[in-house]
Amino acid sequence: MKKGSFWYMPKEPSLNFAKMGGLVPAIVQDEASGEVLMLAFMDRQAWESTLATGEAHFYSRTRQKVWHKGETSGHVQRVKEIYLDCDEDTVLLKVEQVGGAACHTGYRSCFYRRRQNGDWRLVGTRIFDPKEVYGGG
Amino acid sequence: MKKGSFWYMPKEPSLNFAKMGGLVPAIVQDEASGEVLMLAFMDRQAWESTLATGEAHFYSRTRQKVWHKGETSGHVQRVKEIYLDCDEDTVLLKVEQVGGAACHTGYRSCFYRRRQNGDWRLVGTRIFDPKEVYGGG
Repeated sequence: MKKGSFWYMPKEPSLNFAKMGGLVPAIVQDEASGEVLMLAFMDRQAWESTLATGEAHFYSRTRQKVWHKGETSGHVQRVKEIYLDCDEDTVLLKVEQVGGAACHTGYRSCFYRRRQNGDWRLVGTRIFDPKEVYGGG
Repeated sequence: MKKGSFWYMPKEPSLNFAKMGGLVPAIVQDEASGEVLMLAFMDRQAWESTLATGEAHFYSRTRQKVWHKGETSGHVQRVKEIYLDCDEDTVLLKVEQVGGAACHTGYRSCFYRRRQNGDWRLVGTRIFDPKEVYGGG
């Protein structure tokens, strides 16, 4: 028994990308209001870009590349606090949402529909018109 | 052109289990404080059990079965509100956390570690001793 040796060192917490094939879910919460704004995924590169720049980066599963949130709309997320969950495979970001809306549909939060009587009812606040921000229409 | 026919009906929002191989992420938020408590996954059965019972059920990827949150500890989550995100592949549950702690480690929230100066610092509040609740030790 080699007490005090390397093998007895407590393990440092570190974000586990292996569990979901290189991705971790990231919950984004408005720092001021506590409103949950969105959920997205990060690969290691998105995570490191987030740490390096202080602005949220995610991995787009559809486009298969890292995505700087707000790069088109200007509605970036300034990361104020980052939390790690118990099994080290999910992060929580508390952010300042520039422009006031996290969702590409123009709503403050992506969770703008609430379940009521077996239906989904629109309850969110629309901050911008996506046609004006992203063009088209 | 058959205007007004079935084919022109707007699509009802519905939770998309296909995108992640039968699972959707579920963010759990404390209804009263706004604190984000945990993230877990639901398969269709967990989702339907949650709706039917009003208490959160999840799918355990480790144990590969549906899990009634709090079934061992008694710390169930009474679901007060459910929200759907823009691309219909994530839900947000606002809950009353019975016993005050969502995390199996005894912390109020699973997000009990905060990133500071490149390290993860313990910042959470421990509500119970897991040895007393789950036995062992």
